Amino acid sequence: MPEITSPAIRWNGETLSLLDQRLLPGQTHWLTLHDAASVADAIRDMVVRGAPAIGIAAAYGVVLAARRLGDGASAATLEDAFSVLAASRPTAVNLFWALNRMRQEAAALTGGPLITALEHCACDIHTSDQAMNQRLADFGVPLLPDGGCIYTHCNTGALATGGHGTALGVIRSAWAAGRITGVYAGETRPWLQGSRLTSWELMQDRIPVTLVVDSAAGHLMQQGRVQAVIVGADRITANGDTANKIGTYSLAVLARHHGLPFIVAAPLSTIDPGLASGAAIDIEERPGDEVRGVHGHIIAPADVRVANPAFDVTPAALISAIVTERGVIHSPDADKMAAHLSDKAQA
Amino acid sequence: MPEITSPAIRWNGETLSLLDQRLLPGQTHWLTLHDAASVADAIRDMVVRGAPAIGIAAAYGVVLAARRLGDGASAATLEDAFSVLAASRPTAVNLFWALNRMRQEAAALTGGPLITALEHCACDIHTSDQAMNQRLADFGVPLLPDGGCIYTHCNTGALATGGHGTALGVIRSAWAAGRITGVYAGETRPWLQGSRLTSWELMQDRIPVTLVVDSAAGHLMQQGRVQAVIVGADRITANGDTANKIGTYSLAVLARHHGLPFIVAAPLSTIDPGLASGAAIDIEERPGDEVRGVHGHIIAPADVRVANPAFDVTPAALISAIVTERGVIHSPDADKMAAHLSDKAQA
Repeated sequence: MPEITSPAIRWNGETLSLLDQRLLPGQTHWLTLHDAASVADAIRDMVVRGAPAIGIAAAYGVVLAARRLGDGASAATLEDAFSVLAASRPTAVNLFWALNRMRQEAAALTGGPLITALEHCACDIHTSDQAMNQRLADFGVPLLPDGGCIYTHCNTGALATGGHGTALGVIRSAWAAGRITGVYAGETRPWLQGSRLTSWELMQDRIPVTLVVDSAAGHLMQQGRVQAVIVGADRITANGDTANKIGTYSLAVLARHHGLPFIVAAPLSTIDPGLASGAAIDIEERPGDEVRGVHGHIIAPADVRVANPAFDVTPAALISAIVTERGVIHSPDADKMAAHLSDKAQA
Repeated sequence: MPEITSPAIRWNGETLSLLDQRLLPGQTHWLTLHDAASVADAIRDMVVRGAPAIGIAAAYGVVLAARRLGDGASAATLEDAFSVLAASRPTAVNLFWALNRMRQEAAALTGGPLITALEHCACDIHTSDQAMNQRLADFGVPLLPDGGCIYTHCNTGALATGGHGTALGVIRSAWAAGRITGVYAGETRPWLQGSRLTSWELMQDRIPVTLVVDSAAGHLMQQGRVQAVIVGADRITANGDTANKIGTYSLAVLARHHGLPFIVAAPLSTIDPGLASGAAIDIEERPGDEVRGVHGHIIAPADVRVANPAFDVTPAALISAIVTERGVIHSPDADKMAAHLSDKAQA
């Protein structure tokens, strides 16, 4: 059985290990998981997060379920595992894309051959993600203004993917190419993926990063300290509308007001052609204590009412370009999205 | 000697007590201060915050200094106290306005008569602030859309003033008048004045408040859940440009994008006619650990570079109205600001 390791996900042929991203950057602790329910818990509780990484973890969750079932593994007996994994988080479509790929593998086989096929599929989802990110980054680098300083939100790096990253992959490649001068990372309340994860990743790569509170983004743009915004995506609909971490929409409005490029970087698996527009996206509402406190340290009245949408939707009209491993969609709309999806030549 | 008490500031004729706003809402602890240097420390360390409250505290700081000097109190011997208080925080002009009023009192007197005059002046600054806020609120209520839900930022309530509040005073009065349906409070990173103070104040008054992360503001507007934004100010220049808590400018851009009223509520003492425009405002840069952590709980790499501007500047062109205790300036510009300042009739 293969062993596959990326910065936050390890498969050793028998178990799945996930770097517990809730504890970063203070602690580097790996959780080892043996069944699908534990993987679903890890996704829901944000041990693992980032749309591509969630898809990879869920795929391995199906393999774990199949291994437990052994000779009894079949499409029918795996249904519980598919259900529990699909119910872990609602917004990132990569989760459902990965489960659908696994479900197709499961359709015609049973027992040992099924287990082998599922494992090969999960490992392929894992390993191909990093290669896709590299291709995506190559397409994305020219979109960043030469000599510019780039603002990013949440974490879209090696921790959120199979390696390299989507938006952060573009930033890494752009830095390596000498194209950009530095990065502003928004801290990304409430989970602080920017301060905890993006800052940490960029510092490890010695890419100059400056951490700011999310509400400073407008001020930085007004002062001319930011030349472009690049973010990832959790789901992109058929017309180019993009669901991503809460705060993304505000950044898109601010970028438009200041005449700055606003770029979305995501693999093709993030595109959901089954949804016509962003209005149809299910936006996850997470527990209020994430806003009332920080890592269990409560700083608001314990009973204050909270709204905690984990994502928002940026309309395509505010997006300068969407970049995938297949290329760039400038000023995205439904026609351009459809053409991009059907462009088998570069696939 | 008079005793003057407001929700966060107490003068008992001999000492100044400040509610330590760093510990709210978990603890209600009052610090008693005996000299000007301690008051300056309390302002810099944000025991007391909010532009009007800072001005009040600084005025009492001068009284404490004069009492220590006793018969030796004079404009000359008080100079050290004025300097240390003026150096405590740079952006809120109410601080300098209050110190200037005190300085004028000090000009012609010495010893006991000077101490008495200074105390009367400080108490007047304190007590008149609440009355001004009530008048300001009366002017502000009609600016809020009837039946609307209001977004506010930072804390501009009784804790930030001599009582009632500026922007939050308008909200209180509007709620009492049945004009608004509820309030969204942005948590206001890094100091979390929204979650710690505004939520707490509004819950005490049983005004429905929903706490959100700052970056959710755009999403709420997009969803039609907010009908207006109202904020306070730390300094308003001659043309109406307004410095206020970091994040205010982003809210103004978002409000404009969504066609929502963006209202600034502040006493006349916040207007600095000596500065032509916001470009001349000194923006305080605060310690990076405020962003790296929350109340001493560090959640980012300890050595990550941080930009932590405490304020930003909203250009007058993005402001629907500025409301003071003298009335409303719609679509403010230099001419309207000058007319408002010279309008003695209502003063």
